[in-house]
Amino acid sequence: MTSHDGRYRNGAAPVGAAPSFHEMWADLRPIGRNADSGGYRRYAWTGADVECRDWFRTQAEARGLTYEVDHNGNQWAWLGAATYEDVAAGDAVVTGSHLDSVPDGGAFDGPLGVVSSFAALDELRRRGVAFTRPLAITNFGDEEGARFGLACVGSRLTAGQLTVEAAHRLRDADGISLPQAMEKAGYDPSALGPDPERLARIGAFVEVHVEQGRALDLSGDAVGIASAIWPHGRWRFDFAGEANHAGTTRLADRRDPMLTYAETVLAARREAELAGALATFGKVAVEPNGVNAIPSLVRGWLDSRAADQSTLDTVVAAIEQAAKERAERDGVDLTVVRESFTPVVEFEHALRDELAKILGGQVPVLGTGAGHDAGILSGSIPTAMLFVRNPTGVSHSPAEFAAEDDCVAGVLALADVLEGLACR
Amino acid sequence: MTSHDGRYRNGAAPVGAAPSFHEMWADLRPIGRNADSGGYRRYAWTGADVECRDWFRTQAEARGLTYEVDHNGNQWAWLGAATYEDVAAGDAVVTGSHLDSVPDGGAFDGPLGVVSSFAALDELRRRGVAFTRPLAITNFGDEEGARFGLACVGSRLTAGQLTVEAAHRLRDADGISLPQAMEKAGYDPSALGPDPERLARIGAFVEVHVEQGRALDLSGDAVGIASAIWPHGRWRFDFAGEANHAGTTRLADRRDPMLTYAETVLAARREAELAGALATFGKVAVEPNGVNAIPSLVRGWLDSRAADQSTLDTVVAAIEQAAKERAERDGVDLTVVRESFTPVVEFEHALRDELAKILGGQVPVLGTGAGHDAGILSGSIPTAMLFVRNPTGVSHSPAEFAAEDDCVAGVLALADVLEGLACR
Repeated sequence: MTSHDGRYRNGAAPVGAAPSFHEMWADLRPIGRNADSGGYRRYAWTGADVECRDWFRTQAEARGLTYEVDHNGNQWAWLGAATYEDVAAGDAVVTGSHLDSVPDGGAFDGPLGVVSSFAALDELRRRGVAFTRPLAITNFGDEEGARFGLACVGSRLTAGQLTVEAAHRLRDADGISLPQAMEKAGYDPSALGPDPERLARIGAFVEVHVEQGRALDLSGDAVGIASAIWPHGRWRFDFAGEANHAGTTRLADRRDPMLTYAETVLAARREAELAGALATFGKVAVEPNGVNAIPSLVRGWLDSRAADQSTLDTVVAAIEQAAKERAERDGVDLTVVRESFTPVVEFEHALRDELAKILGGQVPVLGTGAGHDAGILSGSIPTAMLFVRNPTGVSHSPAEFAAEDDCVAGVLALADVLEGLACR
Repeated sequence: MTSHDGRYRNGAAPVGAAPSFHEMWADLRPIGRNADSGGYRRYAWTGADVECRDWFRTQAEARGLTYEVDHNGNQWAWLGAATYEDVAAGDAVVTGSHLDSVPDGGAFDGPLGVVSSFAALDELRRRGVAFTRPLAITNFGDEEGARFGLACVGSRLTAGQLTVEAAHRLRDADGISLPQAMEKAGYDPSALGPDPERLARIGAFVEVHVEQGRALDLSGDAVGIASAIWPHGRWRFDFAGEANHAGTTRLADRRDPMLTYAETVLAARREAELAGALATFGKVAVEPNGVNAIPSLVRGWLDSRAADQSTLDTVVAAIEQAAKERAERDGVDLTVVRESFTPVVEFEHALRDELAKILGGQVPVLGTGAGHDAGILSGSIPTAMLFVRNPTGVSHSPAEFAAEDDCVAGVLALADVLEGLACR
């Protein structure tokens, strides 16, 4: 338990008692790893996710932090506070990320932020600095949305950006609801919902994340600061045709939605290229999906992002238009539903400038197309992100990578930031 | 049991004791029907298939026929023989079809041939004709190949066109092998393999089938005779790219196999149109299939058919070439595997002519792009097919249809054929 000599002292946990940086990674490494793909399958509230959560609790307790699960299943480890209720408004400095993964994701997306948080605390204890503000380390639940189709469920609920009713309607591929999944995992889903009282205590949230592109690799920097998250969204395209026998139906008699889908995939790439944006069809579902059956339905999901809203609107409208024209030609009915959307997120300038000042002003500032809990929370509290170099630029894949030296640089940068924010 | 007064007499089953045509359809109708799609999901060796098989046995027993399951799980109902071993070489006349379905298939594809077989026997009993040759009604297992990806497994095994080793390697989407599936369904998989002794007894196999196009509708005929089955095959296209984050990976850095797949789908349609052939991508599998993940792998299955071998070869080669060119552009690795192939099947001319003679010479003769057990067996024994008009032309879909009058016309035509072949 923490000693309250000074205000929030370095705490009673002796330096060296906590699992080291290497030990933390070694404990996490096997959890939810698929032997065939080499990728991680840590979907929210599955066994692998529960193992990651147990790991989090172990780390918290090994450091004498107060462990807490909030109403939305997010994990918190407090230094200098028994719960958030002990904290004065705007006083807490929070750092963390998530531990769940996309299907066959890499080792770093999420865990790097959580491991770095614990390691940065260890570093500050090594430095012997005294905390003047309470600190919390977090693991936000279901950031990737791999299971229920919606990203950042934990932080969205907390920030009031996802209603309790909508959260209750979330279903996985087997029809299991989010509350059922939480319950099965041993977590209490009975009080899901906004948590403004908790957010009101937080003065700053800083998330360390592996970079998901090659900007730092190209600039030769180990660590960067986030400027903004591009506006981005998901659109579901339902192409409804007519199931028929692939071996007997004349081409002229067909209403084949696979053709419309194919044309739309190519249009998405073309329009994104023209606009300097991103557009991807990475997920598709086909009915009946038989080798000798013309599909009755092809459902494709478009992910699109751009540096600004108007570019994004233009790209998506052009893709929809191309899909519509081809659908008419194919005798296919098209429905487009926007399943999720996140407007541009500008990280708070004051906090970003403070980070730049702490880190010495030489650190590059870069935008990103990926959504994050920090992006969700930025609507409620000051948030900032630090990126760690990923030389492959590959993300959401086992090929995602960060060199150990760069990870350590990330830990030291975060320690500097936390010292600057919480120890002065 | 059959009475052997005369040679193979009409049998002891009293006229009227067997379920009527309407009752047979009414009993089959609910089995394996999906309430949402209205289509049938009678996959080989599943509960729905076992129910259909139990129905077959009930029909056989209600008519005093001798029920038998062969080594490959095909069902047989004998009139005038206790088993095939009682039958002299080339003496038996066999009719039947299959009871399994494609995903969300129609009510007629398969069952029409089996129901018509029992109904035709009832009709011949009403006519009071005496059988001079043994008759069998069959249900061939797993004709559609919906579960294990290979069509006509029951007839292929019997005809020696599928080795026991290859049959043992068949796996469904859950990794369950064909022998495991049979065993679970209560059928014995221990003696799978060729059955030449059985085939040697058969002088003619006639299969009634709903038409899978609109030729009879256009010509205004209720019933037609098959001339040939087009050569056809399945090719698996594996497009291997690199999984990456859809929101952060620059277009230039991507190796997105969905693009290559899309281009290939459109090329298949184009090449088929140019050649007057058929080419369809109806099934696709994507890894990891996440909304915000560029796929690592897109696997698409091409079904292609043409009136002759050289046209088919040309079409498939052109599709492969288009896929290869786009794959190079996308940085994607392409592998094409021919998973199955059936050369052109010309139904035996003598039997076909005999059918035409029996039916009066006014019956149209037409080709088909669809594979059938009759096509498989035509390599071993004389086979023929009768088609029943399908006014929608739709097949492998709940919209597949045959009017009751046309079904009855099919039953009467089959009865005439069986009388001509087995009662003279």
